Amino acid sequence: MFRYHQPVSFKHCDPAGIVFYPRYFEMINDCIETFFSAIAEWPFLEIHQNGAVPTAEIRTRFIRPSRLGDHLILSLAATRVGRTSFGLTISCACGEETRFETEQTLVNVDSAGKPAAWPDEVRERLLQFKERLDQ
Amino acid sequence: MFRYHQPVSFKHCDPAGIVFYPRYFEMINDCIETFFSAIAEWPFLEIHQNGAVPTAEIRTRFIRPSRLGDHLILSLAATRVGRTSFGLTISCACGEETRFETEQTLVNVDSAGKPAAWPDEVRERLLQFKERLDQ
Amino acid sequence: MFRYHQPVSFKHCDPAGIVFYPRYFEMINDCIETFFSAIAEWPFLEIHQNGAVPTAEIRTRFIRPSRLGDHLILSLAATRVGRTSFGLTISCACGEETRFETEQTLVNVDSAGKPAAWPDEVRERLLQFKERLDQ
Amino acid sequence: MFRYHQPVSFKHCDPAGIVFYPRYFEMINDCIETFFSAIAEWPFLEIHQNGAVPTAEIRTRFIRPSRLGDHLILSLAATRVGRTSFGLTISCACGEETRFETEQTLVNVDSAGKPAAWPDEVRERLLQFKERLDQ
Repeated sequence: MFRYHQPVSFKHCDPAGIVFYPRYFEMINDCIETFFSAIAEWPFLEIHQNGAVPTAEIRTRFIRPSRLGDHLILSLAATRVGRTSFGLTISCACGEETRFETEQTLVNVDSAGKPAAWPDEVRERLLQFKERLDQ
Repeated sequence: MFRYHQPVSFKHCDPAGIVFYPRYFEMINDCIETFFSAIAEWPFLEIHQNGAVPTAEIRTRFIRPSRLGDHLILSLAATRVGRTSFGLTISCACGEETRFETEQTLVNVDSAGKPAAWPDEVRERLLQFKERLDQ
Repeated sequence: MFRYHQPVSFKHCDPAGIVFYPRYFEMINDCIETFFSAIAEWPFLEIHQNGAVPTAEIRTRFIRPSRLGDHLILSLAATRVGRTSFGLTISCACGEETRFETEQTLVNVDSAGKPAAWPDEVRERLLQFKERLDQ
Repeated sequence: MFRYHQPVSFKHCDPAGIVFYPRYFEMINDCIETFFSAIAEWPFLEIHQNGAVPTAEIRTRFIRPSRLGDHLILSLAATRVGRTSFGLTISCACGEETRFETEQTLVNVDSAGKPAAWPDEVRERLLQFKERLDQ
């Protein structure tokens, strides 16, 4: 698992005092951005020089609300490493309590927006990450 | 269909020059907020005095990117009116081109965050909206 | 005056139930973006092909809070049209009540981020806008 | 000085590849929120149970743009501790390069939005923080 720590700050919260759910997708994006830098060793800065890794599909279940001051941990796991795609799940918890669960598919695209094969080393690192989890 | 017009402005766009997908969820929220005011006749201001209508689940397929200056139209349809829940789809297009499609379930909750029955008139209006589409 | 209408929606509001002030700067940016398209006839899409119009300085006084459902009107006036800069004020009101007042300086920059003279027609339109207000 | 570390992530950046300036105000808010928790020992969670600390005025000069991957440090200093107000400056740098400078006045308000005296211990801590800087 790749873990990303995310304290809930004032900017995340809505008039109901809970995290406004579009803000969760910013957290998800931050988590994936950090994962690409730390695990795939392919930082967004480099990726976006000739392409991008847009989200093709995302499905999220919001289980319990999060509040100002909560310390969230997002745990990212790999489900599928394709030629041009990457399937992942993120589970977000505060202590023992799950807040949301997401399944997401990213696609590597070139500068024209067309799906492109992952660079070999990147794909290798994504596979290794997945294998470590599978064991 | 309930239609919500959303021009893509600079604030929505990322370094790749396309809409940053968490911004789409803000658009979705704005669309639903306007729907509740216009169709369910239950504005968010009133809803949030004693409760909320949080999203329980959302699934989105991003089909084509959107760019600065695009004029998006989000079309909301009802799929299920439950006792405490509301299922809907939103299809977002720019001209003839679909940009994303989403399926979403909202739940009406009371001030303690517990699922609560829709007010009778609200449920009636949601059902009428669904029936008009089904015909 | 150039007027920009901005309803306050749920996404703008914080746990205190009032507009979170960073959101006001998004509204200010939307107002200026619309002004450039409508009055200067130089849309952001075109500007950003070879440059940008970043903010060099902004000063804002928040006078009264805004709440969900308020209908805000931002009124933009020109204070100075320089060779490469543009000084403006924005006053934001809900009905008779002023919510905030801002003074802002924009600079036209080229693709390298260096200050660049406004295109002649753009500068002419900015000057005409200022003159109409001054009369 | 109170220092707040802020890496620039993808979500902060606009189509010009630089930080979208409304995002800087989110960073400023995060910095102040952390300051209140760490130095004034009055976390936003507690503050917002009976009041708030809204910004009355803010003035910001944007000196150099920031880009994806930059590591920003915001340095907060106190300029004035009033009965109900708090004046501060924030200087933001990446390495040796200043990115923006801001002067800001916060006001402590009660649940009705009226200015209220700082709690004694909070005011004492703000004064001590200011004195340490002044020495």
